[in-house]
Amino acid sequence: MKSAQAQLAGVLEAGGPELSRLLHRTEVRLGEVAESHGGELARHAAGTLEAGGKRLRPILVFLCGGSDHGGGSLVSAAVAVELLHMATLVHDDVLDRAPVRRGRPTVVAEGGRRAATATGDLLFSRAFAELVSTGHAEAVHELSEASTSLARGELMQRADAWSETVTPDRYVARCELKTASLFEAACRLGALLGSDGRAPLAPPLARFGARIGLAFQLFDDVLDVSGPTERTGKPRGADRLDGTVTLPLILARERDPDLKDLDLREVVTDPAQAATLCDRIALTGALNSAREQALEYVAEAKALLIGTELPEQEEKALSLLADGVVERYA
Amino acid sequence: MKSAQAQLAGVLEAGGPELSRLLHRTEVRLGEVAESHGGELARHAAGTLEAGGKRLRPILVFLCGGSDHGGGSLVSAAVAVELLHMATLVHDDVLDRAPVRRGRPTVVAEGGRRAATATGDLLFSRAFAELVSTGHAEAVHELSEASTSLARGELMQRADAWSETVTPDRYVARCELKTASLFEAACRLGALLGSDGRAPLAPPLARFGARIGLAFQLFDDVLDVSGPTERTGKPRGADRLDGTVTLPLILARERDPDLKDLDLREVVTDPAQAATLCDRIALTGALNSAREQALEYVAEAKALLIGTELPEQEEKALSLLADGVVERYA
Repeated sequence: MKSAQAQLAGVLEAGGPELSRLLHRTEVRLGEVAESHGGELARHAAGTLEAGGKRLRPILVFLCGGSDHGGGSLVSAAVAVELLHMATLVHDDVLDRAPVRRGRPTVVAEGGRRAATATGDLLFSRAFAELVSTGHAEAVHELSEASTSLARGELMQRADAWSETVTPDRYVARCELKTASLFEAACRLGALLGSDGRAPLAPPLARFGARIGLAFQLFDDVLDVSGPTERTGKPRGADRLDGTVTLPLILARERDPDLKDLDLREVVTDPAQAATLCDRIALTGALNSAREQALEYVAEAKALLIGTELPEQEEKALSLLADGVVERYA
Repeated sequence: MKSAQAQLAGVLEAGGPELSRLLHRTEVRLGEVAESHGGELARHAAGTLEAGGKRLRPILVFLCGGSDHGGGSLVSAAVAVELLHMATLVHDDVLDRAPVRRGRPTVVAEGGRRAATATGDLLFSRAFAELVSTGHAEAVHELSEASTSLARGELMQRADAWSETVTPDRYVARCELKTASLFEAACRLGALLGSDGRAPLAPPLARFGARIGLAFQLFDDVLDVSGPTERTGKPRGADRLDGTVTLPLILARERDPDLKDLDLREVVTDPAQAATLCDRIALTGALNSAREQALEYVAEAKALLIGTELPEQEEKALSLLADGVVERYA
């Protein structure tokens, strides 16, 4: 299997020069946003904005949108989606007291909790400002619904922390809110704001986005158990330490009665215990089952592309991207 | 001078039955928003939403907007502005680890930091969703700019914390971002979405809102020094403990050379020392000067109403509201 980088390179190649051009404009615009608010945003968020990440969500906007008309709406949508994603990362880092993200000090590490919370709020505000500039009310509605879902997913995750009664269905419903909703919005915004004639594709492309978003989150939750930490950049079992109930844990508890009887809040109080619990989860075969479910979502996503009659290269790129979300560290 | 309650009663009386009707619809809608997101928002934010507060910003929307046409846009604007305000309060309480607000446990006290941060984000998202429903792009733009300003003001306040070089002009610029921008937006949204023919009044009414927002913040900063704590509901000198540089402190340092030479970060480390510093600030006469400046802003605000040719009762109500922001605990 390919590395994450190779996978992404394949997507970019299939997307062709138009995709690269649009991604370049996205980077330029993100830089402008960072510089354009009195220095406060630049000071704290420039690192976050520049450090990049894979720009998966902007890529989805562009591949689902086709070309930009030259009006810039598609770039605005990509920037808005990425800014909203970054806002959630900055707030997450405050809550996790995370020192580093993507190899750079986090906003909270550099500026403190208060500045980081405000920086997240500012990124949030600029996401909406960016999309409002397109004058497309349905698009702004879509963003506000996605951002509502992200917050609801986070609240649901907190409400379920340490719970022993979370079902796989409830876990999936939470992932739909917390992760899939923004992938879904990226695809829908692309279809709504992109080339003429794409709007009727918004529903199937949105479902495509939701499916790969689910696969992405499932695979992330597998990686938290399996590691390797040198690839994921965080210690194994972080979800165990804060009580997040994920599919590997739910499945493992169904299969191992001893595990079911453990009070995890008592048993897992340090990283070493979290790693031990990860090993026990792995022994039940739960990781393979969760991976299989993620692969099923990817297959469903790819099936949704058939019949959309997207240009061949865009369909190929989306298909590669779908494969990529579950092969990130394989 | 009148109490805050009596002042507000005067505003409501002058606003007449239309104002009361619109405020009632605002409460109903805020309740619906709390109930409509899977229970998560209701669980954590219902208290905050219901506990109320003075609803100053919705009142500004309605008085600047006149009547609602029956379409509900004005109520949506009022709800959006209040939700955005609440989002900032919920995030503030996380950062201040505040146990109580308006006599009720805060979201962070009840649900913890993670749930409270997500609740703030959710209120934020619903503010935009609410306003998007009006289909008025300029209004949504206005809200996104105001919410950007709120976050920038907070970042500026953090950047200036403990600084000895903050000028009165920089202090005012920060208050314009942090507080006045939302008062300004409330007035502008009212004019944009209200009765026919109000749109040309948007600029002067927005300036009116900005002026009373400034007066509001100045007076708040005076109250932090003067107390009385049984009226303000918080200990005196909270701004001293977290290093917030306000006009009373800036003016006092200009007037008292000994105060100027103190390193406040060293000197003020507990509430008793903060109270002592408040007494020293008061001795310089800085509180009266700051109060006078607040009153000047109120006078400027009221002067802006002349020539708007608003209906007499609405002008009277806005004028009373302007007086009210600096008489809250007098």
